[in-house]
Amino acid sequence: MFHMPTTSDTALTPVTVLGLGAMGRALAGAFLKAGHPTTVWNRSKGRGDDLAARGAVVAETAEDAVRAAELIVVCVVDYDAAEAILAPLEDALQGRVLVNVTSDVPERSRAMAAWAAEHSIAYLDGAVMVPTGVVGGEDALLFYSGSRESFERYESTLKALGVRAAFVGEEPGRAAAYDLSLLDFFYGSISGLVHAFALAKAEGVEAADIAPYMDTTVSILPPIAEYTAANIDARSYPGAEANLGMMAASVDHILHAAEARGLDVSQLAGIKRVADRALARGHAADDWASTYEAIVKP
Amino acid sequence: MFHMPTTSDTALTPVTVLGLGAMGRALAGAFLKAGHPTTVWNRSKGRGDDLAARGAVVAETAEDAVRAAELIVVCVVDYDAAEAILAPLEDALQGRVLVNVTSDVPERSRAMAAWAAEHSIAYLDGAVMVPTGVVGGEDALLFYSGSRESFERYESTLKALGVRAAFVGEEPGRAAAYDLSLLDFFYGSISGLVHAFALAKAEGVEAADIAPYMDTTVSILPPIAEYTAANIDARSYPGAEANLGMMAASVDHILHAAEARGLDVSQLAGIKRVADRALARGHAADDWASTYEAIVKP
Repeated sequence: MFHMPTTSDTALTPVTVLGLGAMGRALAGAFLKAGHPTTVWNRSKGRGDDLAARGAVVAETAEDAVRAAELIVVCVVDYDAAEAILAPLEDALQGRVLVNVTSDVPERSRAMAAWAAEHSIAYLDGAVMVPTGVVGGEDALLFYSGSRESFERYESTLKALGVRAAFVGEEPGRAAAYDLSLLDFFYGSISGLVHAFALAKAEGVEAADIAPYMDTTVSILPPIAEYTAANIDARSYPGAEANLGMMAASVDHILHAAEARGLDVSQLAGIKRVADRALARGHAADDWASTYEAIVKP
Repeated sequence: MFHMPTTSDTALTPVTVLGLGAMGRALAGAFLKAGHPTTVWNRSKGRGDDLAARGAVVAETAEDAVRAAELIVVCVVDYDAAEAILAPLEDALQGRVLVNVTSDVPERSRAMAAWAAEHSIAYLDGAVMVPTGVVGGEDALLFYSGSRESFERYESTLKALGVRAAFVGEEPGRAAAYDLSLLDFFYGSISGLVHAFALAKAEGVEAADIAPYMDTTVSILPPIAEYTAANIDARSYPGAEANLGMMAASVDHILHAAEARGLDVSQLAGIKRVADRALARGHAADDWASTYEAIVKP
């Protein structure tokens, strides 16, 4: 009777991670945890020792690392660093799949995809949307764009990095565009958050006293994201109970209250400027989403 | 054998709502739903007809409305409107509890509390933190400040407006301070959201395609709010894996990507300005919460 393969017999894809900063280490750790033969490399030495203790092979050179695997993940500080590492590896990378999760603008992703295509390297651009502690888990969202065939072939491998592995298009810059967009929302939110605490403290309220209530605001953001997106796609902004006119007045209120307390109001002033431009275009009775019109036609 | 009171026998507090805009109507509707004898009044006529059909008494005059109840809720467009309505009612309001949920800055709440005290009117300042559709429900958060005795006596009545009825202090401006602070966070978030959609669309991504992913960003905000608050209260900003230096560079990235696509960058420029000031103060290796230092010392 012949031997039936079990899960532990299944040969998992050998992978390589280039770059062992906080995120590269988290990615390598997630591959190790999922049981993938994992080779790691970092420009400066000594970074991979604990990963080696968990079973990773620490390669002497980037080329050795690349030749050890089918799927090569690069995660370094920026595209300049990525390009400096990858350019000398064009022969070693040929026929392999390069997944670049280094963060930058879509233009850089497109340039790297073009370079990869010239050298017969299958290219996937990636963006890790969660902190290192979340990498590898159920909630870990990563965007990928570029070679659909590579994504489909290695989807189960990539899911080791994050269960929410989302292929968002063959246009290689697409993952970076999603990344930029989510970060844009993120920075608006956390900057508003710090300012909110500053305003509370100027009124003698401890930040820790008000922090637990922020969840109320947070909980209404997903439905707002949904209808705001629909309005923007339709470029039609049917007025809700709270229209732009009322909301712009509310922003003005907050801005003046903050100013009266000696606080910086740079972000609020920027928000107000856009709202005022949308009002000037006649959107007073429309939904807040109509500020989109003032953003795209500044 | 004597008659045991049941829930339906319990006399619920008679209440009055002055002002029947969208929010006033929602508040009156919530009182009616909870079974309170409810009197309503609005400056312009005809607004209370559907509430009357649900059992509300529509008073002819504001004074009639006030004299019909123990607890008077006023919800109008601003404090100027509230003061214009309430000033002639100082005799009628004497000995009753006035709950003013009109939104404004803490200074106005304090002034009204002082006026109420002069006229032996118990005063609670309130802030409704949820949209009208949520009023009256389990998730409906309302802040109250001022007369603690009034809050405690009418807490069950006030819970008809929102189960999360939070008394945040005897200082009458406190509810307004909480309100301002949550709104400050809210406007930063929704403005970042619209800009995020604009950036996505400039890259050919439909807003509806990216909207479902915004929940990933949303889900990390409550833990960020918690540790950001702790850092700000301690005025100590131990560097996380993503420090201010890296994050400010990321904001700069997004700003330039948006600018290159012809988008308005007023909000991002404001965020960048504060981050840069914090960097100049030596917070590069600290957490983003260190931007607080640049907000309080602009």
